Amino acid sequence: MEPTFCSKLIDRLEKTGSHICVGLDSRYDKIPDSLREKSIQETVYSFNKNIVDCTQDISVCFKMNVAFYAGFGSKGLDALAQTNEYIHKQYPGILTFADCKRSEMGESVAMIEHEIFDWLGFDCVMVTPWFGFDTVRDYLKNTAHGVCVYVHDSNPTAVEFQDLELKDGRRVYEEVAKRVSTVWNTNGNVMVEAGATYPKELAKTREIVGEDMPMLVAGIGPQGGSADSLKGLFGTHKKRLIANSSRGIIFAGVGKADYFKEVRSAATTLQHALETVA
Amino acid sequence: MEPTFCSKLIDRLEKTGSHICVGLDSRYDKIPDSLREKSIQETVYSFNKNIVDCTQDISVCFKMNVAFYAGFGSKGLDALAQTNEYIHKQYPGILTFADCKRSEMGESVAMIEHEIFDWLGFDCVMVTPWFGFDTVRDYLKNTAHGVCVYVHDSNPTAVEFQDLELKDGRRVYEEVAKRVSTVWNTNGNVMVEAGATYPKELAKTREIVGEDMPMLVAGIGPQGGSADSLKGLFGTHKKRLIANSSRGIIFAGVGKADYFKEVRSAATTLQHALETVA
Repeated sequence: MEPTFCSKLIDRLEKTGSHICVGLDSRYDKIPDSLREKSIQETVYSFNKNIVDCTQDISVCFKMNVAFYAGFGSKGLDALAQTNEYIHKQYPGILTFADCKRSEMGESVAMIEHEIFDWLGFDCVMVTPWFGFDTVRDYLKNTAHGVCVYVHDSNPTAVEFQDLELKDGRRVYEEVAKRVSTVWNTNGNVMVEAGATYPKELAKTREIVGEDMPMLVAGIGPQGGSADSLKGLFGTHKKRLIANSSRGIIFAGVGKADYFKEVRSAATTLQHALETVA
Repeated sequence: MEPTFCSKLIDRLEKTGSHICVGLDSRYDKIPDSLREKSIQETVYSFNKNIVDCTQDISVCFKMNVAFYAGFGSKGLDALAQTNEYIHKQYPGILTFADCKRSEMGESVAMIEHEIFDWLGFDCVMVTPWFGFDTVRDYLKNTAHGVCVYVHDSNPTAVEFQDLELKDGRRVYEEVAKRVSTVWNTNGNVMVEAGATYPKELAKTREIVGEDMPMLVAGIGPQGGSADSLKGLFGTHKKRLIANSSRGIIFAGVGKADYFKEVRSAATTLQHALETVA
């Protein structure tokens, strides 16, 4: 039997000894002229290939915000599919996350599986918990693929509903973390995302989901989250946390002589910062 | 100045005197062989065109679940873009809803605008409120396009988080309805969706958002919601509610001699049922 998504991710965390996820939010219009190819698709794919090549040994996984590709139509999505194909072929064992905030249920989940796993080639779909367990249930059958639930996010208004106080004094996101890690994750392919910009809520999320569950942390870097805020949250054997950085890494080369050297440098800088707190 | 999305929708509600939204969840593999064309794209587009032609006078708007198209790759999405183009060209004044459950924020909202409005050709994007106002803020600039927020859904586990009891005795969805209708909808292009399978919560949502705001209601028909549950919820001048039905209408012709006659008949049956409670 193929290992579950979470066990593959944990395996990769242990093999690399790393804690970073490079976010390929490769918005075409932000890619410098000097790196442009003949078409949007070729430019984005080539840019991604270069980023992947220069960070693959220290990036536990790659996360792509699908909107940054879909915003350029089917050519953008084709570049995304090509990128996933390249990663899986060239670097087996590296998992990719579809940061797509899809929250379907019922028969449309099968459609999302076709879109996100079969067509675009991702290993994990990221969903909001708003519609409850119906959003996740159908993904539990194929445990080789993962589902990552946004529990407490990094954006300024994440608190608007996620932090509402419940009758028993807990916050809404705490109930989400509890449900996800207990009654939802029955087959070992469900994990959680939380934001470094809210250190207290991030720590609480770790406390609730327990020491074993891999956590993806957003909001490090330009969004304001610091590596320091991750102290003590790395779980079992200090190997269950991955911090995503997108713009801070992939656009680190803008205006510099050797673009991808700067990208590599930004990735290793973050990895070193994480090592000191892991 | 172009009218706002909500005023265009209200205009259409008043002109048609109707209350139905036909959901074009035109999953290719459910379209009968007899209606198949040479390719997936042609089949889906031709099917949609026929559904639109035979319901356009009584369908206030059309809603498409994007997953049912994206599940067939770029060909599916192209058929979706073609469908929106056809509707807008052939029947000006009919608005279309992207049932895509996207919940982006920050610079990715501009990308969603490119994907959903420019590329796929929709008039309104549907978003979950999970990330708070950040998800909606950037859509308020272009009021010709709408944002519809899922306040209380029709699926069985919608209650899992949406109905959590807050400290003050209210439920989470009530706070969402309040925020959306007061501090979010400042420019007249934000509306709400709620499910007919939870009549009490649906009524509460109307009470909170007030008499003026258009509401889209899901869950009528195969999902178990009844027209009766909509009594008293039609708001100002009885013209501010639209009930969506997808499978119950578009697949009503399966196994019947005259496919689209049955589709038309299912649509008018629902419209008549709504008329008796409006």
